[in-house]
Amino acid sequence: MIDPDFELDRRADAGLTRQLYDRVRAAILSGTLPPGRRLPSSRALARQLGVARNTVSFAIDQLAMEGYLDTAPGRRPIVAGTTKARLVTGPAAADRRPAALKLSRWAARLRQADWPFMNEGRPRPFRPGVADPRPFPHELWARCLRRAARQASARSVAKENRPSLQAALLRHLAEHRGIKAEAHQIIVTPSAQAAIELIARLVLDAGDLAWLESPGYGGARVALESAGARLGGVPLDRSGIAIAGRSDRPRLIFVTPSHQYPTGRLMSVTRRQELLAFAAHTGTAIIEDDYDSEFHYDGRPVAALQGLDGGARVFYVGTFSKSMFADIRVGYAIVPDALVDVVERAQRHAGQIVSAPLQDALAGFVEDGHFAAHIRRMTRVYRARRDRMVAALSAEAGDRITIAPPPGGMQLLVELADDRDDQSLTRDLAAAGITARPLSRHFTGAIGGQGLFLGFAAWDEREIDAGAAILGRVMRQSRRQRRIRA
Amino acid sequence: MIDPDFELDRRADAGLTRQLYDRVRAAILSGTLPPGRRLPSSRALARQLGVARNTVSFAIDQLAMEGYLDTAPGRRPIVAGTTKARLVTGPAAADRRPAALKLSRWAARLRQADWPFMNEGRPRPFRPGVADPRPFPHELWARCLRRAARQASARSVAKENRPSLQAALLRHLAEHRGIKAEAHQIIVTPSAQAAIELIARLVLDAGDLAWLESPGYGGARVALESAGARLGGVPLDRSGIAIAGRSDRPRLIFVTPSHQYPTGRLMSVTRRQELLAFAAHTGTAIIEDDYDSEFHYDGRPVAALQGLDGGARVFYVGTFSKSMFADIRVGYAIVPDALVDVVERAQRHAGQIVSAPLQDALAGFVEDGHFAAHIRRMTRVYRARRDRMVAALSAEAGDRITIAPPPGGMQLLVELADDRDDQSLTRDLAAAGITARPLSRHFTGAIGGQGLFLGFAAWDEREIDAGAAILGRVMRQSRRQRRIRA
Repeated sequence: MIDPDFELDRRADAGLTRQLYDRVRAAILSGTLPPGRRLPSSRALARQLGVARNTVSFAIDQLAMEGYLDTAPGRRPIVAGTTKARLVTGPAAADRRPAALKLSRWAARLRQADWPFMNEGRPRPFRPGVADPRPFPHELWARCLRRAARQASARSVAKENRPSLQAALLRHLAEHRGIKAEAHQIIVTPSAQAAIELIARLVLDAGDLAWLESPGYGGARVALESAGARLGGVPLDRSGIAIAGRSDRPRLIFVTPSHQYPTGRLMSVTRRQELLAFAAHTGTAIIEDDYDSEFHYDGRPVAALQGLDGGARVFYVGTFSKSMFADIRVGYAIVPDALVDVVERAQRHAGQIVSAPLQDALAGFVEDGHFAAHIRRMTRVYRARRDRMVAALSAEAGDRITIAPPPGGMQLLVELADDRDDQSLTRDLAAAGITARPLSRHFTGAIGGQGLFLGFAAWDEREIDAGAAILGRVMRQSRRQRRIRA
Repeated sequence: MIDPDFELDRRADAGLTRQLYDRVRAAILSGTLPPGRRLPSSRALARQLGVARNTVSFAIDQLAMEGYLDTAPGRRPIVAGTTKARLVTGPAAADRRPAALKLSRWAARLRQADWPFMNEGRPRPFRPGVADPRPFPHELWARCLRRAARQASARSVAKENRPSLQAALLRHLAEHRGIKAEAHQIIVTPSAQAAIELIARLVLDAGDLAWLESPGYGGARVALESAGARLGGVPLDRSGIAIAGRSDRPRLIFVTPSHQYPTGRLMSVTRRQELLAFAAHTGTAIIEDDYDSEFHYDGRPVAALQGLDGGARVFYVGTFSKSMFADIRVGYAIVPDALVDVVERAQRHAGQIVSAPLQDALAGFVEDGHFAAHIRRMTRVYRARRDRMVAALSAEAGDRITIAPPPGGMQLLVELADDRDDQSLTRDLAAAGITARPLSRHFTGAIGGQGLFLGFAAWDEREIDAGAAILGRVMRQSRRQRRIRA
């Protein structure tokens, strides 16, 4: 029966029920109470231990619920019919060497993937794609969050894409980006990357061809690959992605018309029309990633492809990570009206949903004008930083690089004047405290140049000057070292 | 040259540059200014129009940037070399009927999918899986959000999975769920669904077999299908998923051991050990969805599979949507230590990232004890509601249904005593104002029973009584109507 030495410690922290439970469970697991052994009735056990019968009953019920004991009304509990070897994790399982977990081909590809750029460490000049969080009006944003959370109590389950945010965002995008859509076409996602992946999976089957700009955005490349695409890297000319004369036919085209990633070029209107005509003729979907189009410095920003197309086959993707701050992690897609249903289902199936209080807070932030005001302010700040960056780089390394000042955005590309290897230069810069990304790693297919992709938005004038000075020094040194080695 | 009637309206709202830009662009688009035509120099044009030369230059630069004009230093601007037909959207594109967008097989499956349950309309009794947002401490939560947003200014780019939340959550889960892990093994996702899909894609290749409980959770079914799985529905016995004697070998098993979905059953410890031994022997991954295990009413909650396994092959999935409120949309997975790297990469590639301020606010909410306090409070509330629900249903329809009161969670399953069709009954209930989900639609493979899956957590005693009364009336009526028809 129960171990005659078994005594409950009335001074212990654990309650009597818990002690009894633990002792009986341990006896079963160790084999002291083997399968099939009947325990005393709870009445008898309570008497033996000098405790209330309920104390015993609770422990027995718990052990029965967990499968250690079989119980039936009017019968004494019996240790469940299983062998010790099957109950304990130890011997039986450990005898045989556990088989390793096999992962999918996707997992294997992820381990090899060249994106995101790893080992860049803490953000520092000139990491691309980062907004400066320091001038952000955190206090106003905090109030929007608090207000949204307070107002939530009245609400029960919300729609996945909050109408408040859809309406506020549409007004902003219609005015500033020429978007033509209804509010319900806006799908809110936990990042622009999530939107790109979701759309790619909705359009592409395994083996389908997808075009992307080369050089182009690595995040799009991996999202298209995840969806099973064969990738066709399409070179650029001065007007953008050079589609003329190609005989291959993609199912999807990914482009960055406003500020081509990473060259910063603006896709010409002619090329936009050509691209839309091609897509209409061939039934091709277009993803337009308008990632940092809010910040435009020279001339007027050009209206988005989405508006030119009338929203029939362009999926417009945007993000708050550039216009607010990186950690906000909210993106969105504007999808063709006829596809809203299926995209919402995809969003549910993939769980790509943004917290409702966060969406409501963003809606308030946009609606109250804080969003547009912050963009206006940062446009002035970032334009000055771009100009400072161009000037500082020219002064420090003007003879070794060619700079194409971008008409907008948060980063610029410098091409290396001689046949310098941008990957080794990037490593030298990293060692000296500067983050740069090598242009050569942005190509899909043939590598068409060596250069450095540098962000200027997140650093002030002093940091830009200091960074440019380091960059100039490293370029001079690494050239000298190369001469010495040669 | 330029239309001699061309005049700028100095009183108009639009600036002179904008007017000039619009007129020249319109002239190019209409063909009045054909490709190859040279414009006057900006100096001559400024003189002709009586405006400053900069006004003209800005307009010309914008038109050049957009591809309407070709410019070169010292030369007059020339209309870009493209045909009218290629520039305008109209004729050329519209002549040919645009080809329809083709979607992927996944999109086609989504359109057919039986999940999520659509057309349930606004939440009302007895929609399953919904927490009651009314007693939630929205004011405390609002303060946590505000604090997190205020403290964000110091931070630059954050880690995708915030260490603050990982640490707070781990402490909670180790104490309450027997989780054995390091904090960095916690991956924070925009919903539990996102975590399930991500893990499925990391483990499964197209055509791989995945087991899931039958009846079971529809969200898991579609996530496994999205990852390309062949589904094997495994029937339940009293102890949970009945794996003994099967000769098929899955790559992944999805289970809900704490409160089986939808039966509410607790998986016995014996079955847990068997399942883990099977998985270790066969190299199978397990997803343990612990979706509402926080709320346990009878006996102690049983420790999670993850802790029993030592974290080698169990992916533990949880959510804040049940313990806080549905719209919070934050889930998490605890993944094997050796796989943290690849899961983080998958998270980046799929964009499954949760806003940093939201993660920090949650960390504060857990750390300050609000989370545990809310769970303690709601456990008492929900237990009383479960008991009320069981009593009310027994009183109203006890002769027509069998109720198995679940030991925890937010919903219960009633089996229909006769061979009543649960789908038609669900429709009758919907018409009378009651949401129920038919058990028959929860099976994968053979349908093993008819029943109603009902949530009790989100409604108070009065709502429960009223809902049960409607349910009883509808059941009596629909039986009578069936008799009349027969």
